[in-house]
Amino acid sequence: MTIGVIYGGTRVNGNTEVLTERVIHELPVERIYLSEFEIKPIEDQRHVLGGFQNVNDDYNTIIDRILSHDILIFSTPIYWYSMSGIMKLFIDRWSQTLKDIRYANFKDVMSSKSAYVIAVGGDEPFLKGIPLIQQFQYIFDFIGITFVDYVVGTGNKPNEILQDDRALAIACQMQKTLKTHI
Amino acid sequence: MTIGVIYGGTRVNGNTEVLTERVIHELPVERIYLSEFEIKPIEDQRHVLGGFQNVNDDYNTIIDRILSHDILIFSTPIYWYSMSGIMKLFIDRWSQTLKDIRYANFKDVMSSKSAYVIAVGGDEPFLKGIPLIQQFQYIFDFIGITFVDYVVGTGNKPNEILQDDRALAIACQMQKTLKTHI
Amino acid sequence: MTIGVIYGGTRVNGNTEVLTERVIHELPVERIYLSEFEIKPIEDQRHVLGGFQNVNDDYNTIIDRILSHDILIFSTPIYWYSMSGIMKLFIDRWSQTLKDIRYANFKDVMSSKSAYVIAVGGDEPFLKGIPLIQQFQYIFDFIGITFVDYVVGTGNKPNEILQDDRALAIACQMQKTLKTHI
Amino acid sequence: MTIGVIYGGTRVNGNTEVLTERVIHELPVERIYLSEFEIKPIEDQRHVLGGFQNVNDDYNTIIDRILSHDILIFSTPIYWYSMSGIMKLFIDRWSQTLKDIRYANFKDVMSSKSAYVIAVGGDEPFLKGIPLIQQFQYIFDFIGITFVDYVVGTGNKPNEILQDDRALAIACQMQKTLKTHI
Repeated sequence: MTIGVIYGGTRVNGNTEVLTERVIHELPVERIYLSEFEIKPIEDQRHVLGGFQNVNDDYNTIIDRILSHDILIFSTPIYWYSMSGIMKLFIDRWSQTLKDIRYANFKDVMSSKSAYVIAVGGDEPFLKGIPLIQQFQYIFDFIGITFVDYVVGTGNKPNEILQDDRALAIACQMQKTLKTHI
Repeated sequence: MTIGVIYGGTRVNGNTEVLTERVIHELPVERIYLSEFEIKPIEDQRHVLGGFQNVNDDYNTIIDRILSHDILIFSTPIYWYSMSGIMKLFIDRWSQTLKDIRYANFKDVMSSKSAYVIAVGGDEPFLKGIPLIQQFQYIFDFIGITFVDYVVGTGNKPNEILQDDRALAIACQMQKTLKTHI
Repeated sequence: MTIGVIYGGTRVNGNTEVLTERVIHELPVERIYLSEFEIKPIEDQRHVLGGFQNVNDDYNTIIDRILSHDILIFSTPIYWYSMSGIMKLFIDRWSQTLKDIRYANFKDVMSSKSAYVIAVGGDEPFLKGIPLIQQFQYIFDFIGITFVDYVVGTGNKPNEILQDDRALAIACQMQKTLKTHI
Repeated sequence: MTIGVIYGGTRVNGNTEVLTERVIHELPVERIYLSEFEIKPIEDQRHVLGGFQNVNDDYNTIIDRILSHDILIFSTPIYWYSMSGIMKLFIDRWSQTLKDIRYANFKDVMSSKSAYVIAVGGDEPFLKGIPLIQQFQYIFDFIGITFVDYVVGTGNKPNEILQDDRALAIACQMQKTLKTHI
């Protein structure tokens, strides 16, 4: 069992990353920093003759990397009460992969995975981050991923998350759960 | 009173656009198609010495265009139970404008505006689009915009929205309301 | 096809009732005013030897009446951002009926029904009534009822709902849909 | 600083109570078991000449008891994705107290308090209990109470909550926070 961490942040060692590293400490993980890749916005060509056209960017590279892991951690700062734009760009493109004959078993493979969400924001995220969690629930339901757990923490300034004892307690518990399953 | 329509779709004459055009029929609007612009993902530099760096893309052009309107319509297809990635990229960048001395009164100007949301999706959007509406509520609350109304419609294939009588009825009512205020 | 309207209001001709009557105008309905019945709070006896004890109140009378209808309309004022207490008392007791051998096919029968929700409140219900709709979604999912549509209207003072053109438009559309299915 | 625990459960030593007792262990609390009181459903008489009539039940006794505490813990099992019916009956009646001249400062006093929510349910409550938390957020916002924290745990059978390590970790953290503030 291995873990793929999909990082949606745009700041090195941001609060979301700090909290996530607590969760994955000493576990076999591959870290994927979306900000290091070029991901073009999806162009909705579901109803166009010929369907989706090949896109010249790094998206498929990322898909190839996450497909091999049993557990996925979606780790995103909360920007404007939702996941970061680059994480949204990444997930939007799943619609294309679902129609891509080179990934004919995409949904099957995804539906064998378990997922965790780690999100940190500044404006009462344990309340106002709730719609984001519901969206992940719908996303995972659609693709078939099992939604195991999430943690939503509070932090703005660098390392402020380390003062959110509630989030740290959940993160610590998440670590224990992951260790049991790996 | 003028209206700025911010289109987040990526398909010409998509269902969201069809529904929106019903709402704005014969009204004084400016249409802004985000897909025609380059909008780079925000880089979180709030805590970096020197703050946000200038970004070489079309984002400020769009901001300049929306600032002049009294009413904003956020019109987005529902991708994965949320706004489209390009609309998210656009809104994420507001964090930068809030710190931009060239837009020192950004929040003040925005808080004088009223907003409507028009969203169309394929998977029970009148239920599963609910978190998206809550996010817009939080977004508008933060920036000070008055959230007047929204409509969430159902549609996948081209023009399928025209069979959603419920959405059409709300859109029709929205038209009347807008006509009264213009 | 017949319709059972479950009224959760406590005021005669309240706004919720006014809106609901628009929806069911000239349709074959049975009106059930929960406020006219005695419904005791559920006592959780799922894990007690002997299970749930008979309760001496009017609850089963109401169940008997709704079971015969194909379509159920849950019509409740929004009290404190949720359904009225008496409607909650009524739904809570479903847990007992699910274990009641006299209603062995309760879930089966319920799962053949379609449901509509009509709710009216005073404090931005089209936004703050959203969690109530999500709860009905989970309730209907659990019991197997098909959630067809809902309308959330604004009103405090008597007949104030008649000024909510948006709600009236949805109600009117709901009427048309119901007429087609009856 | 003292704590008032408002218990909405109907089962002695139910999972919600077990989790709550972890939170309040060795703290100065008063336990109020709503199931031991008679609370009649509110009758909406806001728009009736003469306003709300006196109700002959135990409701005011409970109000008198909670008003003296600085911190309130709303502890409820999740019945049908919401608070228990008896807790809803109790909160619905606040509308009456807000108009009651004997409690002229009700909103002022309430708005000086802090609140916690503890809720336990059986059907994926950490996801499907989310609308309940949002409702408490709106309730507290309206009355002016500061919403400090919540924990949502999983449990059906007696003591099953003791296997929910995530909920126990949050409860433990909540205990620490409360100890600091008392």
